[in-house]
Amino acid sequence: MARADQRNHGQKRRSDILATAIDVASVEGLDGLSIGRLAVEVGMSKSGLFAHFRSKEELQMATLTAAAEVFQRRVLAPVLEIDAGIHRLQAMVEAWLSYVEKTEYRGGCFFAATSSEFSGRSGLVRDSVAKLTGSWLARLESESRTAKRVGELAADVDPARLAFQLHAFVQEANWAREVLHDRDAFTKARAAIDETFARAATTPPRRARRRNG
Amino acid sequence: MARADQRNHGQKRRSDILATAIDVASVEGLDGLSIGRLAVEVGMSKSGLFAHFRSKEELQMATLTAAAEVFQRRVLAPVLEIDAGIHRLQAMVEAWLSYVEKTEYRGGCFFAATSSEFSGRSGLVRDSVAKLTGSWLARLESESRTAKRVGELAADVDPARLAFQLHAFVQEANWAREVLHDRDAFTKARAAIDETFARAATTPPRRARRRNG
Repeated sequence: MARADQRNHGQKRRSDILATAIDVASVEGLDGLSIGRLAVEVGMSKSGLFAHFRSKEELQMATLTAAAEVFQRRVLAPVLEIDAGIHRLQAMVEAWLSYVEKTEYRGGCFFAATSSEFSGRSGLVRDSVAKLTGSWLARLESESRTAKRVGELAADVDPARLAFQLHAFVQEANWAREVLHDRDAFTKARAAIDETFARAATTPPRRARRRNG
Repeated sequence: MARADQRNHGQKRRSDILATAIDVASVEGLDGLSIGRLAVEVGMSKSGLFAHFRSKEELQMATLTAAAEVFQRRVLAPVLEIDAGIHRLQAMVEAWLSYVEKTEYRGGCFFAATSSEFSGRSGLVRDSVAKLTGSWLARLESESRTAKRVGELAADVDPARLAFQLHAFVQEANWAREVLHDRDAFTKARAAIDETFARAATTPPRRARRRNG
């Protein structure tokens, strides 16, 4: 292979490994993600995997980064094309809910699993999970603030509380499906989200639809 | 010691061990709860602990049962003294939120931690966690149904959705405190819960207060 092909091949291999790592961690947690365990899952030798990630922590951090990139591409990037305000906020929540609903991972939402797993601990992985999940909640909050500033949310709406509620419904849907196998979890979450927007909006808001929905 | 004293002493020892086990599991998960690890925490020998619990799974199951008993005693029993209907429903949610807020465990809510940990798995521990957490959500739902039947909730309120929303706010408060160290998490949850009840109730509901609050 030419050098560029080799590099592309190596990158493709690494990204396949990390997709499997996200999947494993969604069930077993990032602590259940040992290089030995992952080697078995991807059909590589342990030493082959060591060439990609030199330690468990490095593997955990690379998995986190890869999961954040997937989220960025699937959920965040499309909605940034919508004008700021309530329609973008609605699209953010709906894109997130749909993404979690159609999850490709065996354990459901990767960030729900790992943030719960590391919440009581300290260290680099814990801080990164908190930073990534916190920045999404902060984005929902700042979009709520924008929507309020441009007059699309009622004067008595508290943007931080609105973001808290919307975030709670998506997390609850994932929890109820994963823990209780509740088939109606996403229907309930969607109804709660619609009701919350209907109440908070100053005008009956156009329901933001998924682009291909 | 007389035989009865010995038995009481043994029971006290076992309940102290399980209190520590709940605490450890709230941070490390029930999978992080090995007999060796717990022996160090409680200052016993491994073989001494084996006399109480013969396997890791037995220890995990005993810890679950102990945590359910604490929940029963602290949250459920007091509110059952209140007449069925919206006031009891409010008291259930407030008692639960307060209990999680003042948690004695290093990792916050034990059931939030363990239900997330075991959600993608199978087996006895997973099924027990699902049964225990599911029965609490089902209780919130059946209390909502009672409140609606006696005319204390508006006709358009869906009891399952109401329970889903209230449950979501308490879980989100625990998550935001544990993961993001959000100091306002419980204030936001309380406001969301009050707002939800104010909207769902047919009459301005008396805010259910804690007995000693």
